[in-house]
Amino acid sequence: MAKKENFKVTPWNISGEVDYSKLVKEFGTTFISDKIKKKLDKAHPILRRGIYFSHRDFDKWLDAYEKKDKVSIITGRGPSERMHLGHLVPFLVAKSLQEQFDCDVFIPISDDEKFYVKENLTFEKSLEYSKDNILDLIALGFKPGKTFIFEDFVYTDIYKYAAKIAKRITYSTAKAAFGLKPENNVGWSFYPAMQAAHILFPQFYTNKKHISVVPVGIDQDPFIRLTRDIAQDFGLEKPAALHAKFIPSLYGDPKMSSSKGGSIFLSDLPEEVEKKIKKYAFSGGRDTIEEHRKLGGNPDIDVSFQYLRIFFEPDDKKLQKIHDDYKSGKMLTSELKSILIEKVNAFLKEHQKRKEQAKNQLDKFILKNN
Amino acid sequence: MAKKENFKVTPWNISGEVDYSKLVKEFGTTFISDKIKKKLDKAHPILRRGIYFSHRDFDKWLDAYEKKDKVSIITGRGPSERMHLGHLVPFLVAKSLQEQFDCDVFIPISDDEKFYVKENLTFEKSLEYSKDNILDLIALGFKPGKTFIFEDFVYTDIYKYAAKIAKRITYSTAKAAFGLKPENNVGWSFYPAMQAAHILFPQFYTNKKHISVVPVGIDQDPFIRLTRDIAQDFGLEKPAALHAKFIPSLYGDPKMSSSKGGSIFLSDLPEEVEKKIKKYAFSGGRDTIEEHRKLGGNPDIDVSFQYLRIFFEPDDKKLQKIHDDYKSGKMLTSELKSILIEKVNAFLKEHQKRKEQAKNQLDKFILKNN
Repeated sequence: MAKKENFKVTPWNISGEVDYSKLVKEFGTTFISDKIKKKLDKAHPILRRGIYFSHRDFDKWLDAYEKKDKVSIITGRGPSERMHLGHLVPFLVAKSLQEQFDCDVFIPISDDEKFYVKENLTFEKSLEYSKDNILDLIALGFKPGKTFIFEDFVYTDIYKYAAKIAKRITYSTAKAAFGLKPENNVGWSFYPAMQAAHILFPQFYTNKKHISVVPVGIDQDPFIRLTRDIAQDFGLEKPAALHAKFIPSLYGDPKMSSSKGGSIFLSDLPEEVEKKIKKYAFSGGRDTIEEHRKLGGNPDIDVSFQYLRIFFEPDDKKLQKIHDDYKSGKMLTSELKSILIEKVNAFLKEHQKRKEQAKNQLDKFILKNN
Repeated sequence: MAKKENFKVTPWNISGEVDYSKLVKEFGTTFISDKIKKKLDKAHPILRRGIYFSHRDFDKWLDAYEKKDKVSIITGRGPSERMHLGHLVPFLVAKSLQEQFDCDVFIPISDDEKFYVKENLTFEKSLEYSKDNILDLIALGFKPGKTFIFEDFVYTDIYKYAAKIAKRITYSTAKAAFGLKPENNVGWSFYPAMQAAHILFPQFYTNKKHISVVPVGIDQDPFIRLTRDIAQDFGLEKPAALHAKFIPSLYGDPKMSSSKGGSIFLSDLPEEVEKKIKKYAFSGGRDTIEEHRKLGGNPDIDVSFQYLRIFFEPDDKKLQKIHDDYKSGKMLTSELKSILIEKVNAFLKEHQKRKEQAKNQLDKFILKNN
């Protein structure tokens, strides 16, 4: 328990073992209730299995949908690199919600943010990552005609919306919410306005006041709060939020981050995936086979099991069996890893094929300036 | 002389009687030489008669032109109101230089700046002023095909260029150059990057490194200096500058400003012009006609004479005669004012007609997003 006292979560850093109950209390958010869970029982495992655990006004979003009012989803991507599995989390949620509720999905691509924040990222490289990442997103299977992908350096009309919001955010406020320093560049100072414009964009763009839900990591909640305040100034509906726990890296670190390694990229080849999982995936197994057979493994801390639970085994019964077999010692770590490797590679093979096809579908998804 | 010691010029404020020699020394600019003046002896009175008195690298601009290298002109407008005579100064210069040197003119319309800075200016009103001001600018007679007017909230692609520059300007630097305060909004923090993008735009847009000259009030020189530093980072030519003295208001204040009144608007009707000049134009005449006939008037401080000199009497001989007649007492203030009223109204009549016609010429001048 002492360990849990030392955790710290800000939008820029996560350290220690995260106490999610404490976060909910601190941030003033609400746990996802059983009533809500029931309504999502056909959704993607990420939503069904507690990865998303907290929310703001998502009950209102569901109510609006049931009253046949317009609802939408907004979740963005800061394209500073190739995408890895961890990056998919909010998009899998968005896709699942879009399938169930047949609503619009808005996907801002904040190439400007990454350009401002990453010292060595060039403008050209930033555009390149955007192009690549957009193909990954289209490959996930969003509905054409109901999915609007817009890139800040391409759909530059977003500047108009950001400007409207910028007028309402003082430097002091931005400094506090984003931890700005005087030596940071002025693009960075401006970005809070751009991010709020992204979150409110569904209402600006459709010219219709409605609730839009933002699936985000719980660490991003301060920005949601800032934007909810701003929404009121514009006579808009406050955006709802769904808060995710952190997805562990292969190493078992609390948050997957490609800068630290330990990520499976969507472009990885089968051999790479196999090697990474075999070599790095943090195991809940015992030190020796004998011990494992006798005492069993710990699926709760085993990254391979967690990846099956979060991403790759939608069948609850099958997942339960893997859980039980692993816990009892019947299933070895190597066997568990084999299951994951096969699932990941099947997913990536299909994804990479769809990404190729996405090149011909760009026009159906990309917003352009007037 | 003691009076001159107390003057202060910053981009936000001008007070006291301005000592221009001291400014040239302080800012590190160069007086316009006789050699340069000779090359401009057919130019608009504003250039010929010492209103533009200082420069940076304008000699290089002229040399480049003579070597048949590309040169261009850039001067912008922050549209926070209807335009008045004082606003025309840099545009009359730009037009005159374009006529003589047959070069491109770039005119950024910074509706975003005014929106950020003017607390009560709405987004919609800001667009409205832009529309109106653009017609005034086209009415001046710039060359179609060689004149590029771009409005930040319409030609939003400018955001890409501003972003590239924003990455190179820290908040500290912007704060120092623009006197930013923590309670100012983040749009305001970002604007220094936008302004530098405007000044460097001729080189970005034509994709050709070349000298562009910026006609500005001397008070704006700190921004020119900042942009010259940035130009180097991008491998671009440092912009040149032509610095103007302040144009007195009708009251004789050192700078015409519509917020203080005392301005002739381009939309004024003949009766308004007559009334304003008769009532407000600061006179260098004597208190009584008898005294005036005996001692003569002072054309140097007489606003009517100054407006003829700056804007409305291009013929040097005619101007000299007015000067001499007024100084000798032969010409009364009322007569001098009558000459000005007639000239202003003739100009405005023609201008207002051309402004009407400009509505059909927008496509020839306005830059649009790709």
